[in-house]
Amino acid sequence: MADKAKHAISPTREEDYPEWYQQVIRAADLAENSPVRGCMVIKPWGWGIWENMQRVLDGMFKATGHENAYFPLFIPMSFLEKEAEHVEGFAKECAVVTHHRLEPGPDGGLVPAGKLDEPLIVRPTSETIIGAMYAQWVQSYRDLPILINQWANVVRWELRTRLFLRTTEFLWQEGHTAHAAEVEAREETARMLAVYADFAENWMAMPVIQGEKTAGERFPGAVSTLSIEAMMQDRKALQAGTSHFLGQNFSRAQGIKFQDQNGQEVFAWTTSWGVSTRLVGALVMVHSDDDGLVLPPRLAPKHVVILPICRNDAERAQVLPYCESLMQELNAQSFGGGSVRAWIDDRDLRGGEKNWQHVKRGVPLRAEVGPRDIAKNAVFLGRRDKAEKLAIGRQELVQTVGSILDEMQTNLYQRAFALRESNTRVIDDVDEFREFFTPKNPDEPEIHGGFASCHWAEDEAVDRLLAELKVTIRCIPHQAEPEPGRCIFTGKPSAGRAIFAKAY
Amino acid sequence: MADKAKHAISPTREEDYPEWYQQVIRAADLAENSPVRGCMVIKPWGWGIWENMQRVLDGMFKATGHENAYFPLFIPMSFLEKEAEHVEGFAKECAVVTHHRLEPGPDGGLVPAGKLDEPLIVRPTSETIIGAMYAQWVQSYRDLPILINQWANVVRWELRTRLFLRTTEFLWQEGHTAHAAEVEAREETARMLAVYADFAENWMAMPVIQGEKTAGERFPGAVSTLSIEAMMQDRKALQAGTSHFLGQNFSRAQGIKFQDQNGQEVFAWTTSWGVSTRLVGALVMVHSDDDGLVLPPRLAPKHVVILPICRNDAERAQVLPYCESLMQELNAQSFGGGSVRAWIDDRDLRGGEKNWQHVKRGVPLRAEVGPRDIAKNAVFLGRRDKAEKLAIGRQELVQTVGSILDEMQTNLYQRAFALRESNTRVIDDVDEFREFFTPKNPDEPEIHGGFASCHWAEDEAVDRLLAELKVTIRCIPHQAEPEPGRCIFTGKPSAGRAIFAKAY
Repeated sequence: MADKAKHAISPTREEDYPEWYQQVIRAADLAENSPVRGCMVIKPWGWGIWENMQRVLDGMFKATGHENAYFPLFIPMSFLEKEAEHVEGFAKECAVVTHHRLEPGPDGGLVPAGKLDEPLIVRPTSETIIGAMYAQWVQSYRDLPILINQWANVVRWELRTRLFLRTTEFLWQEGHTAHAAEVEAREETARMLAVYADFAENWMAMPVIQGEKTAGERFPGAVSTLSIEAMMQDRKALQAGTSHFLGQNFSRAQGIKFQDQNGQEVFAWTTSWGVSTRLVGALVMVHSDDDGLVLPPRLAPKHVVILPICRNDAERAQVLPYCESLMQELNAQSFGGGSVRAWIDDRDLRGGEKNWQHVKRGVPLRAEVGPRDIAKNAVFLGRRDKAEKLAIGRQELVQTVGSILDEMQTNLYQRAFALRESNTRVIDDVDEFREFFTPKNPDEPEIHGGFASCHWAEDEAVDRLLAELKVTIRCIPHQAEPEPGRCIFTGKPSAGRAIFAKAY
Repeated sequence: MADKAKHAISPTREEDYPEWYQQVIRAADLAENSPVRGCMVIKPWGWGIWENMQRVLDGMFKATGHENAYFPLFIPMSFLEKEAEHVEGFAKECAVVTHHRLEPGPDGGLVPAGKLDEPLIVRPTSETIIGAMYAQWVQSYRDLPILINQWANVVRWELRTRLFLRTTEFLWQEGHTAHAAEVEAREETARMLAVYADFAENWMAMPVIQGEKTAGERFPGAVSTLSIEAMMQDRKALQAGTSHFLGQNFSRAQGIKFQDQNGQEVFAWTTSWGVSTRLVGALVMVHSDDDGLVLPPRLAPKHVVILPICRNDAERAQVLPYCESLMQELNAQSFGGGSVRAWIDDRDLRGGEKNWQHVKRGVPLRAEVGPRDIAKNAVFLGRRDKAEKLAIGRQELVQTVGSILDEMQTNLYQRAFALRESNTRVIDDVDEFREFFTPKNPDEPEIHGGFASCHWAEDEAVDRLLAELKVTIRCIPHQAEPEPGRCIFTGKPSAGRAIFAKAY
């Protein structure tokens, strides 16, 4: 018990990982459930992370030639019906608008009125409505490519929801492109997966595996779905971004056709790609510890909290101006393509309580400044990725704050990479596979499993075993050379290994 | 006819102002109608304007102490019912979600299924859902103020829609604040109106009148509504932003209460304030001319288009590198708190056609560069706010581009200000009022009217006359000293003048 009392979050990761996740979000004040089933409220500190994600990704999309636009929230039901696999994939989880006003009902309350001729679906994704517009915009090969992204909210009616990871309404970006040639569309699909991997690794400090989904895990209507997969601290996989090559499936369904250079009328080749507020959940699960949120500095809403330590008004009059000028000097430093973001927390709270709040919220650096520190022209610095605090000269802190933050960013990446490496196993035997994915104590399942790299082949027996173990094929990783072998479940020939894992 | 042929937009403003507006939007490729009734698609050039508006406003909100957050798209019907005036104001124009999936119906097509116990409303505005959260967050005076903004889409089921000005779905920001004291909430309401006026005048180059709405024009549920009102080129008013003091109406309806410093439980004082994509419509109508869109440079997606003029590959090899280095030099210059945004349009199009495209899209500066210009180390510069083009030395252009854009910004403001001044009249006589607002030819209504500043008093006879003339009271302007007088319609005593106008 004495040991447990040292941690700000209860339960710890080892004790109950799913509950630990909820408690980290609560303690960091990132988000909470709303009175609307399955919809969350993203609070300012959580929004600050998403805002940074949006800014960085938006810059990456523009640098790869994309423009933003905006398409309607609603999709006529008939549009969804045009692509058979697509409607099959989304019909079971649609919010349906059927009326356009409210009227007093027989018992005095309001009732829906003004029934629509055709129900409208709140977009679960926008291929169909965007495709309908592209069909109007594209006449000639000169109109291609179209390279558009939108930032939007989407709705998928989920029965079991978890903050950020799975919510009925979520926020995302969806890129939708149309090309004259298949090869261009395939290149675009790969290019955007690489952008996502770059963002995940260099901004989120989250190592990812790039690969292709198997047929059963594809986006409904896609020819090929690529994804990035990351390992969470409970050894489960999280799909962090997807990029779909849609072939001509959607352009046929929606009539996106054009005259090519030979005067032939042909269908365009399309892609779509997206990441969502789910990334915030991934960020929380990859880096946080039993004291709360840990943020990669490049995406932290703020970098340095300055905590004035003063016991009386006289000390306050000395300490606050010192903090003020320190803040200005820190904010003049560069970091992560922008400036360091420091602020002073001079709320009237006990120092210990205040300090713990910032630990739990994942502020990368905490600089305590009291009269004794000022006498030495130093501050007492806490780093969120290390337990100990150290005295550091004021000038040294100002000069090195950018490199300290860079070092933290690298440290977080390396920690996450080491965790993944030590929990990834090449498995060539079905018993070992079963053992890898089975908890020792089924009544109180501990953290177990990881990424298993195995040969496999399509077979119903494989599907049954995976369903029993609650394991899925995450992806067929991109790799230099395919390595043929035999499926560990059936003995059938296998063209290469896939990554197997339990997943979010 | 010869005269008409000089203009890119047909009809001209004088010929048919509403149709001219639609044609300007079409010619500038800002937006278009979608297959979803009343919902528009915002195209990249239009989105670029909105993106700039968002960036600038977001900075202003943060500079005045606000944080961003995000609340659910859906509002349970019962929440809307809690505030009587509020539901009265929005019940007639709500998109109502009644089902959460689609199923195959008897005739093979899909039908809505999974009926919800309680219908959900797609937010027309978020006072009720945000208030429900604030009620949970606020316990003590120490929890106040809450100063939150959200960027979101909202839906109001409009029967007659016009691109940007009135659409079923629109994008906006809505600020929602809660305060311990009435005076703070009133100050906040005024502060945010001032922010909107600052944005309208200094970024949109659109002069506005700040004032208070009369009782009949208030936001449903507000104690007081402040607005900024701008004059469009057809002399009509457009309400460009509103800031509401909600008193304790919403905090009572939702239970936002707290212990004050004396330990008493009291209700919070709340405000809300918003501007929307309607501002893009206002921008179009204030500045554009019979050749298309005119953009204030501070909000233009791009500032300078460089147009290479080359008749053959040899010229091309000379001209393009020159354009490239010119672009880089221009982009290194500062303007409007950021950098100049120049780009090269080297599409394979006739020079005249290309030039007209950029005129119609409102690009502030067009720099033509051909071999003869290069020989003189000069470019041929077209300014969107002036008809003539002038040769200007390359170095001079680079050195003065920021001040040229500033001058254009000022010029547009002054032009709009002069139009408003020359169409604002102090009217003390009802016959003059009637004549001011009556077109000479009722069959083909020409541009007429403007802002009338008149004494008035609440009276049904006034309402009837205004309804007949299709005139509304826009606001009671903020002014140094109230000037008592007599209502020009009824002779009753009047505390001060109001602004009357036809309005969007």
